[in-house]
Formats: sequence, structure tokens, C-alpha cells
Amino acid sequence: MAGEKGVVLLDFWVSPFGQRVRIALQEKCVEYEYKEQDLANKSELLLKYNPVHKKIPVLVHDGKPVCESLVIVQYIDEFWSHKSPLLPSDPYCRANARFWADFIDKKIYDCGTRLWKLKGEGKEEAKKEMIEALKLLEGELGEKKYFGGESFGFVDVALVPFVSWFYAYETCGNFSVEKECPKIVAWGKRCMERESVSKTLEDPKKVYEFVLVLKKRFGVE
Amino acid sequence: MAGEKGVVLLDFWVSPFGQRVRIALQEKCVEYEYKEQDLANKSELLLKYNPVHKKIPVLVHDGKPVCESLVIVQYIDEFWSHKSPLLPSDPYCRANARFWADFIDKKIYDCGTRLWKLKGEGKEEAKKEMIEALKLLEGELGEKKYFGGESFGFVDVALVPFVSWFYAYETCGNFSVEKECPKIVAWGKRCMERESVSKTLEDPKKVYEFVLVLKKRFGVE
Repeated sequence: MAGEKGVVLLDFWVSPFGQRVRIALQEKCVEYEYKEQDLANKSELLLKYNPVHKKIPVLVHDGKPVCESLVIVQYIDEFWSHKSPLLPSDPYCRANARFWADFIDKKIYDCGTRLWKLKGEGKEEAKKEMIEALKLLEGELGEKKYFGGESFGFVDVALVPFVSWFYAYETCGNFSVEKECPKIVAWGKRCMERESVSKTLEDPKKVYEFVLVLKKRFGVE
Repeated sequence: MAGEKGVVLLDFWVSPFGQRVRIALQEKCVEYEYKEQDLANKSELLLKYNPVHKKIPVLVHDGKPVCESLVIVQYIDEFWSHKSPLLPSDPYCRANARFWADFIDKKIYDCGTRLWKLKGEGKEEAKKEMIEALKLLEGELGEKKYFGGESFGFVDVALVPFVSWFYAYETCGNFSVEKECPKIVAWGKRCMERESVSKTLEDPKKVYEFVLVLKKRFGVE
């Protein structure tokens, strides 16, 4: 079990949830071993370390697993607390950051999945909800550099992996994030200036190709 | 807006999410004003303070709202940090507590709702999932007094309001939590010895009557 010493990440390349963890680890300059998982044929390691959800990402730190991306990002922030705090120190600001990260968790991936999986009314409903959710996020961002203000933080980490999914969502739903939410697109570009983000996010075209594979797998034309 | 000074809780009597907040406030000995909400006719106050989800509970602290029950409980723990810590101090133990609270959030209420709302296969599926979820929680509890060990904490606060819903779930699903998960039932009784819990939880028969009202409202016989 040599691979489980230190920091090991069980992940899947295009997963926005896994990407959150990779960005947080890079912000903290934590070295880790990346273990790509085959989600169609789950490994013993994944089943052992996440027996409850059987999902990536799993961070294994000195043999102890942490699961669920936002729980992992908070763990990373608290364990490697000496550098680049992701959550602010004020309790009210922390609550606000947790609220918006939770909102992203509840809305964006689910709406996005319905955008590529459904047709007709279901797709239209998903598109409406996605645009509404992004507009609410844009309202929260306002004129700030990052969601928490001047520093890249928890809400940025939670949302930014979806930026590379926007092209797929736009193509499936026939809308433009830039037109609906220009500030969100500008924020995404600012985030891409950070090495932690630019090294982690995938080419939007590759993400779209992956969505096409998913559509085929689920029998959606 | 005199009512918004100090600590105000917008809540609904039987809500397990609202009850989490009430228990946390009592554990911390925080005095607050309780404002029962009519969920069929949402108040200006609720819409103003939770425009995103339009749901209770909302904690309004000196005019500033905090929404989503687990976010609120963490806020309470961090703002009134001098007394009865709910989350442990060790980062790994904190991550573990957040993982299980999130698991409860994702599973118990949803399974419970399907138990009273659905029939036939849907109900059977919900019952199976509910028992599986409770057994996983029982496994995590093990021989400990509380989920976090000797002290009443975050996971206890997240789960214990559902104890008063068990009777309704059992009656709708025709199973016995005590038979399936005796340690969870014993833990629930231990929690009921705390004033914060016993003063907050409702009589299980009243919860069941409320579920019967819901069934009627949704046209479920």
C-alpha cells in the first residue's frame, strides 16, 4: 500500500468535483499522487476508501480518506492552513461562502446534466434554471475580483471547474453564457490567469467531446 | 424592523432543518426570537432574507441572514465559539463530521418524503434506501455515546430531529427502526436527555398527523 502514504487523489480527468480538489491542492502547494479512476469499472481502492458513495474524488491523506469535494476542499484549507486561506476568517463571510458553494453544488451540475440528457420541455426548463442560477451567481459576484473579494477563495474553487463545461452547456442548450452573464465569463478568465486553474481545467472542446460520449452511452441523440 | 435586532429565527414548527438550528442555539445558550412562518403564504421577511431558496430556516443575526441549516449550524458554532463546540478541532474529525452531516442531508429527508408520497415499488425502494442509510449511520455511530465521541456535536444536531419523524416513516413504510437499527434508537434516547433536544423535538404522533396533512394536500391516500 505504498501509494497511500502522503497525499493521494482518486479522481477522473474531466470531473468538476475532482478539479476543485486539484485546484485547492495546487493553491496550497501540496504535492500529491494522482490516480485516474475507471468509473465504469471501479477500483478496489475507490470502493475501499469511499464505500458509502463509491464516487470520486477521494483524497487519501496518510491512509485516511476524505470524500465529497466541498468537504475535501475545507479539509485541505484547514489542514494546510499556513498558506492561501480559501475560506475567510470572519464567521459571517464563511457562512456566506458556504451558502454559495452549496448553491453551486445543488444547481449547476444537475442543470447541466439535464441540459445534455433531456429534450424538449425538460431541456428548456434546465436551460432556464441554469441561466437563473448563473445570474444569481453573477449578482453575488458583482464588481468584485473574486467571490470573496480580492482573494481567490472557496466559492471560486467550487465554481471555476464548470467554466470549462460552459461550452458544452451552451452547445446543448443553445444559449451564450457571455451574453447572459458577462461578469461570470470575465471572472472565469481572471481565474484562468492562476496556474492552479489553468493547469487543471480542460479544453472546453474536449469536455464537449466527453459530453457527446455520455450522450451516446445514455442513448441520447 | 425592530424584530431583526439580535437573533431572529424564521422557522416552521415541525421542520427537522429548523430544529437543527434551534438545538444548536440552545446548546450555545443563545437567546433568540422565534418567528413561525406560514409556508403556504410566504412572508415578506422570508422572501427578503432568503430570496434564493425562499425556504426556512433563516437565522437573522443583527439584520444579516444566514440560510441553509448546516451552514447556519456551522455559523452558530463559529460565532459563539466560547461554549459547547459542535465541530471537533482536528481537521480530519471535522471533515468526517461534515461528511456524515452531508450524507444525512442527501439521504434521510428525501427517502422519508418518498416513503409517504409514493406507493408500490417507489415506496419499497425508499424504504430499502432509508434502512440502508440508517444502517450506515449506525455503523458510523458504533459503540460511541454520540457520533463525535463523548460530546454531543455536529452530526448529532444534523440527525436528531429526524428521530421524531421515525414513527411517521415506520408507519408509512411498515418497518421498525428499533428492529433494524437498535443503536440509533438508543442514541436518540440519549440525545433526548439533553434539554436542547427534548425541548425542540415534537411528539412523533403530532409529526405523523402532520404527514397525514401533507398526504392529503398532495392527494396521496
